[in-house]
Amino acid sequence: MAETPPFAHVAIIGLGLIGSSIARAVRAAMPEVQLSGYDANAESRATARTLGLADRLAESGAEAVIDADLVIFCVPVGAMGVAAAELRPGLKPSALISDVGSSKANVLAELNAALPDHVIVPAHPVAGTERSGPEAGFASLFQNRWCILTPPDTAAPHHVDQLTRFWQALGANVEIMDPQHHDLVLAVTSHLPHLIAYTIVGTASDLESVTRSEVIKYSAGGFRDFTRIAASDPIMWRDVFLSNKEAVLEMLQRFSEDLTALQRAIRWGDGDALFDLFSRTRAIRRSIIEEGQDDARPDFGRSGS
Amino acid sequence: MAETPPFAHVAIIGLGLIGSSIARAVRAAMPEVQLSGYDANAESRATARTLGLADRLAESGAEAVIDADLVIFCVPVGAMGVAAAELRPGLKPSALISDVGSSKANVLAELNAALPDHVIVPAHPVAGTERSGPEAGFASLFQNRWCILTPPDTAAPHHVDQLTRFWQALGANVEIMDPQHHDLVLAVTSHLPHLIAYTIVGTASDLESVTRSEVIKYSAGGFRDFTRIAASDPIMWRDVFLSNKEAVLEMLQRFSEDLTALQRAIRWGDGDALFDLFSRTRAIRRSIIEEGQDDARPDFGRSGS
Repeated sequence: MAETPPFAHVAIIGLGLIGSSIARAVRAAMPEVQLSGYDANAESRATARTLGLADRLAESGAEAVIDADLVIFCVPVGAMGVAAAELRPGLKPSALISDVGSSKANVLAELNAALPDHVIVPAHPVAGTERSGPEAGFASLFQNRWCILTPPDTAAPHHVDQLTRFWQALGANVEIMDPQHHDLVLAVTSHLPHLIAYTIVGTASDLESVTRSEVIKYSAGGFRDFTRIAASDPIMWRDVFLSNKEAVLEMLQRFSEDLTALQRAIRWGDGDALFDLFSRTRAIRRSIIEEGQDDARPDFGRSGS
Repeated sequence: MAETPPFAHVAIIGLGLIGSSIARAVRAAMPEVQLSGYDANAESRATARTLGLADRLAESGAEAVIDADLVIFCVPVGAMGVAAAELRPGLKPSALISDVGSSKANVLAELNAALPDHVIVPAHPVAGTERSGPEAGFASLFQNRWCILTPPDTAAPHHVDQLTRFWQALGANVEIMDPQHHDLVLAVTSHLPHLIAYTIVGTASDLESVTRSEVIKYSAGGFRDFTRIAASDPIMWRDVFLSNKEAVLEMLQRFSEDLTALQRAIRWGDGDALFDLFSRTRAIRRSIIEEGQDDARPDFGRSGS
């Protein structure tokens, strides 16, 4: 980046997959930025120190945010309120508050309650892997991914603009959205897929008639794809479902109705209904690949295809 | 292969993803084997000819199987019976009959009815991609994948042994199984995952409140994984669900119960129930990777992780 970074000092609270990826990406894209960090878990702090993830690794949230112009909460959405309240004493009045949580209406309310005098611009980079912890992060995680900002009316345009430039510097495309709409969109593109993946992996491992070793051996028939998602961080995902309850339940209801219709088609041998749906769904895959949101290689490039 | 190939002449009926991959794999592993092929679709036959997939590309099934020692049906499971009846006039009495269908009890019954005087050893290589057609195949598709044989009591051990050596020569590990048990195992490791993937992609594309372009843009949150599977061949999958109806309905019922339990946990804010399941499912992913049945790289190696 030739231009001045949008923030001179960034504090990252929570150094897991996303927090540590932000740290690495900031280092790569804006090396002049002062980075401080904190993680409530002592082991993660030690790992982050070994990895040299920040200029200053603090022993408390309040210490980490001293002098910071931007504070990003990268903790599970259920822990945002507590984390924010803890570091309040160290915050500059002018510090911009943001986060990376997967639900937005609820997080904004929690951050607002804990930090009523600060400007808050929530954000959600739609990126990640199934791994967790400071070692799991990498600098290119946000490249060509979308980052959704959900600024409240109280945020000034220049704050939104500053945060937009920050995420763009990390390689992301930025979109502005209403928090309620964000929660509905992500319920279908992210939360429901995770819930279903967790469910089917659970169903498969509970069978009496099929052994677990058979489930593993023959997983290349489709099942293995679901196990990747179902290996994601359990605390993070528990919090997402509790925090975005309404939208998740709405999408789940629709999914269940559609599944019941297919079940009925199978029971009654209605091949046309099955064929119609199975033909429609190909187009969506094609669009996702055309827009660069997934790998074009068949089978995700497995098996040397 | 230094040893003599188990079959001198192999005929492949149906030259899509699997049939054309077998042709390529036979060429690579057993170049001395005589290969003939047929596809009911004239365009696929022409493509197969251009690709040089077989020594002899016939204009009918009956012509393709002349002199063949092994005939493999690589057509949708609903088309097996008709394809077998068609080529009966050309078959040698000693020809071994096999297939690659994703359901086995039903296919065995159909092949038996069409070819009552032939030895039939059904097979199912648990391998594939979301692509279809003769161009989609590749020689390494079966490497380190499992191929399940479901021989009936009427098949002699030497027939099973011959087919086992054939699949091993193509790189597969071979397992013998009862057809009913195969259908139950694959219902959970393959058929149910496909059904669910098709459903969720359908649900997402039918929403009024979220646009299709939003679904595509933010698909990296998990949804895109499902779209790969939901891009699979519609005819093949329609037939699988109709042909393995009982086992699929049984697995679907269990899945729905488990999903309803999770839905209830979300509605009542039972975080412990969510956390318990989400923690359990990680172990299965670990085992799949340890047994070489999936890519160990996070996020399937996307995003340069």
